[in-house]
Amino acid sequence: MAVYTEITDEELSAFLVGYDIGHLTAFRGIAEGVENSNFLLRTEKDGQESDYILTLYEKRVNPDDLPWFLGFMRHLATKGVSCPLPVCGRDGEALRTLAGRPAAITTFLSGVWPRHIHSEHCRPLGEALARLHVAGSSYPPVRANSLGPDAWRPLLQDAARSDRQTETTKQLLEELDLALNRILPAWPAAGSQANLPHGQIHADLFPDNVFFLDHKVSGLIDFYFACTDFLAYDVAICLNAWCFSEDGGFNETFARQLISGYESVRPLTAAERDALPVLCAGAAMRFALTRLYDWINTPPDAMVTRKDPMDYIHRLRFHLAAGNSGVYGV
Amino acid sequence: MAVYTEITDEELSAFLVGYDIGHLTAFRGIAEGVENSNFLLRTEKDGQESDYILTLYEKRVNPDDLPWFLGFMRHLATKGVSCPLPVCGRDGEALRTLAGRPAAITTFLSGVWPRHIHSEHCRPLGEALARLHVAGSSYPPVRANSLGPDAWRPLLQDAARSDRQTETTKQLLEELDLALNRILPAWPAAGSQANLPHGQIHADLFPDNVFFLDHKVSGLIDFYFACTDFLAYDVAICLNAWCFSEDGGFNETFARQLISGYESVRPLTAAERDALPVLCAGAAMRFALTRLYDWINTPPDAMVTRKDPMDYIHRLRFHLAAGNSGVYGV
Repeated sequence: MAVYTEITDEELSAFLVGYDIGHLTAFRGIAEGVENSNFLLRTEKDGQESDYILTLYEKRVNPDDLPWFLGFMRHLATKGVSCPLPVCGRDGEALRTLAGRPAAITTFLSGVWPRHIHSEHCRPLGEALARLHVAGSSYPPVRANSLGPDAWRPLLQDAARSDRQTETTKQLLEELDLALNRILPAWPAAGSQANLPHGQIHADLFPDNVFFLDHKVSGLIDFYFACTDFLAYDVAICLNAWCFSEDGGFNETFARQLISGYESVRPLTAAERDALPVLCAGAAMRFALTRLYDWINTPPDAMVTRKDPMDYIHRLRFHLAAGNSGVYGV
Repeated sequence: MAVYTEITDEELSAFLVGYDIGHLTAFRGIAEGVENSNFLLRTEKDGQESDYILTLYEKRVNPDDLPWFLGFMRHLATKGVSCPLPVCGRDGEALRTLAGRPAAITTFLSGVWPRHIHSEHCRPLGEALARLHVAGSSYPPVRANSLGPDAWRPLLQDAARSDRQTETTKQLLEELDLALNRILPAWPAAGSQANLPHGQIHADLFPDNVFFLDHKVSGLIDFYFACTDFLAYDVAICLNAWCFSEDGGFNETFARQLISGYESVRPLTAAERDALPVLCAGAAMRFALTRLYDWINTPPDAMVTRKDPMDYIHRLRFHLAAGNSGVYGV
């Protein structure tokens, strides 16, 4: 939730001249997305009001990746996935510059993201994820997962080098190190040896990125971790993000709903089912590592929300103990 | 800019049952207002979409004051001032409870607040301020200004007691102490001795609380410092907030525009004109004090924006040197 970059009226007016979306009637900062600055932009054209989201890409997004992200969103929207559609300027370009930053306008999506997960959310979520995978299969450009297994050991080492360590964080890093020794050798082969289907994945489909309306998924947002990876890894990320109760317990009903929704659109292969425990452990590792890294490197009196890494360390322990994919209800 | 309190879907649904505004179609946190949590709320009723702002009042607002604020906004809106209109629930009440906090729904206002002030903003601003004062004159309830002159010495003493003082803050507090010795004895008499018109004032009409559309004021927001005080004190607050350049210089053209816009609706009395220098100095003192207090008491590595108190200390020096109201272009 943030607006990191302020935009002057002159900059905004000059920017909007590049679009054929009418004249500005409202402009409000949106408390959404921790990485970028987002604004609600309302315009009027021919007596009709339309809403858009204006995003300024802040430092944590690599500008070189933006054409891939925007192209992916456009591709998905064209294929019927409800996601923000990048709006092109008069010159046909969706990616522009505003206030010295890369910027884009996308369509506004209806719906509300669920603050509490219920069983009824999980089946539509699974369906929406599978539709994203199917629609994404015809988007050819490749973007490597910069937070995939190759990144985990370096992230762990970076965290371990910090001089802000406590006894607790040291112990947790040791635990993650041992877990990595189990996960990495068991990780499914990629490239020409791959026996798991791969393609475009969202890679961050947490509840605050999924809008619901009338018990259906009305929109998926925040594609700025999307990449090319195993499709089942996206399922594993969702199992982590949606199927644990607030008390930490795994909710098998939620998982069954998620998987059955997914398989109603795209059945998992036997290899994907078998790989779920290690993919789930890897997904938990990825979020445990980035959260622990931020936890160690954010001063405790900094008034920003540090996401507690323990949630994902508990999930990691669960997956490592799981043994087979039966626990996920497949 | 903030969302301090998260609302669950169940709480929100149960809350909206209390209103006749249709069903929810979108819900987004708004990065606006440093004191409260604000959300954009979109509903559909009879095929028509409407936007609202849902506000949860956080700790810095006294819940006992909320009926006064909401009543004032309703009164102003009824009198044609474009400000958020509190929406009543089915039971006729505008002030309700959500997620354990006082909460209200108000109408959404069009427009954009100016990030850079130009001369063209100042005349419409002055007109809008005077219209607010005229419309407010028929709202009888009194709310004392809790950040008025009686509060300044205690604020200064609280700041001086902090153990986070530096040499610089100590010197600034000494300067403010000397300034208070000049301002307080010269402050216009209130109550039965008052020769300055008083009434309902906004008391915080900074640029981010004034929306413009097509070079006109389209809305005034954030009435949570509004109170009963000298009308000309509100003019003095605006002179401080709108008529200094970013380099710190006073812009007499802006001031002339502001005053002339104001007087086109409500002429200042001779006593009000004469009182402008001390009222301006008092307004600068009020913002210098609250900012200096926050500056001293916010750890420097806390990642929140501390507003630099020096802006208002420079303005205070300007007003104390002003001598007479000629410098404000009256």
